Amino acid sequence: MVLDVTSFQLKADKTELEKSLANPESFRLLYFPINAVCSTSRDILSYGGANFENIYPKDWKKEKFNTPLEALPVLYIKTKDGKDLVLSEVVVIDSFLAKKYNLLGDNDYDEQLIKIFYMSTHYLQERFATACTWSHPSVQAGQFEYFKKNMLPTWIKTHEKHLVENGSNGHYVGNKITLADIRTANAIAHFSQQPDSEEYINLIKKSEPIWKVKEMVESQPEIAAWRASEAYQKLEIASKEFFKDPLKFFN
Amino acid sequence: MVLDVTSFQLKADKTELEKSLANPESFRLLYFPINAVCSTSRDILSYGGANFENIYPKDWKKEKFNTPLEALPVLYIKTKDGKDLVLSEVVVIDSFLAKKYNLLGDNDYDEQLIKIFYMSTHYLQERFATACTWSHPSVQAGQFEYFKKNMLPTWIKTHEKHLVENGSNGHYVGNKITLADIRTANAIAHFSQQPDSEEYINLIKKSEPIWKVKEMVESQPEIAAWRASEAYQKLEIASKEFFKDPLKFFN
Repeated sequence: MVLDVTSFQLKADKTELEKSLANPESFRLLYFPINAVCSTSRDILSYGGANFENIYPKDWKKEKFNTPLEALPVLYIKTKDGKDLVLSEVVVIDSFLAKKYNLLGDNDYDEQLIKIFYMSTHYLQERFATACTWSHPSVQAGQFEYFKKNMLPTWIKTHEKHLVENGSNGHYVGNKITLADIRTANAIAHFSQQPDSEEYINLIKKSEPIWKVKEMVESQPEIAAWRASEAYQKLEIASKEFFKDPLKFFN
Repeated sequence: MVLDVTSFQLKADKTELEKSLANPESFRLLYFPINAVCSTSRDILSYGGANFENIYPKDWKKEKFNTPLEALPVLYIKTKDGKDLVLSEVVVIDSFLAKKYNLLGDNDYDEQLIKIFYMSTHYLQERFATACTWSHPSVQAGQFEYFKKNMLPTWIKTHEKHLVENGSNGHYVGNKITLADIRTANAIAHFSQQPDSEEYINLIKKSEPIWKVKEMVESQPEIAAWRASEAYQKLEIASKEFFKDPLKFFN
């Protein structure tokens, strides 16, 4: 269900829009019906107890023209003063929601670090998507191999180093859950949905500090409830089916 | 020259670090000696009249182990109270510098929009890099073709739409230069360094509102001075040489 909110209201009064944006009444998050790059936003909305709905396109090829940048995810925001606002680009949506639900630490230094770890993990998954999932079938095997031998081990090693420096307490920064923790748990979930998930998970699981982050995130009551829901389970099954042969869905 | 600052100081007093980070004395920006994903940070530092130096790795394969995430760019910050801080991940560095030099608009609503356009352009270039520049030679022609026929035209069309909504004034948001404007000018510069630059530039140039953004950014005196400098010209030549055959540099 794509809503007809495609304008960022560039000519409207921004001070008023700023106030409206700071007072959301409810959210609708538009993304494909799988767990991929949008999972972090879904987790944050669940974690924050937001009034929100996951919505999905019915015919993306046509409906994309009704989104601001012909790209997903899109976050529709109904504000308390009755406005319909729209945000686009996953990194912006994740950060906006993380700020709202206190997942960016207690000070600006922490916020920078949280965003660094978040972006590093986000890129790992993005590059997996572009260089592996969406690579040409004739070169795919080599691309997956390179990912397993180079990109993933580097991510594991460097992230483990910083997690150890923070005391291996299941958090990247400080001693409470942040956007960085949730992003890592989502990346692991993403790899666990892939056809050769066992190989990725075996590599990641060897790092106790990283695995602890995943378990900490999944043990949050609100996130655990979302994971156990029928809606999530449906996304999980659809994701596994999707990643068996992603190109099939575009033919 | 890779500096030996690899720790994010996760165990240190964050309130103190926050204060230090807010008072930088000078910057050193570490990246490869080409104009690629790091150009926006270089432009912002020039625009802001920062006390900064571009530094380059001498032997990245070895030196990467001395960076926080074995990835570039890295921003080293010498603070007024004598600390050596380090930031990583280009999106974080760009946003941090943009905030410091007032390139994120006048209110939080503008900031979200600026970051949306920034991320959209950033991804265009990232996907060009991963799906085209670094694709396997056997499939590269098809990848470039897909980029020219689909990704780039979608970016042009959607960005033009919002620029027109903002009055085709050379700015994405409001009526002064922001991070979004600089990022677009850098993406265009990046495409102009490619072997088949003419094709990209011809497509982009057809959009007057987008081309106006590029010209507005390049007409800023501080940025124009940086572009005219010997250091920039050297990077420009190196970039063109590099993108003729990027894989060569890794063998």
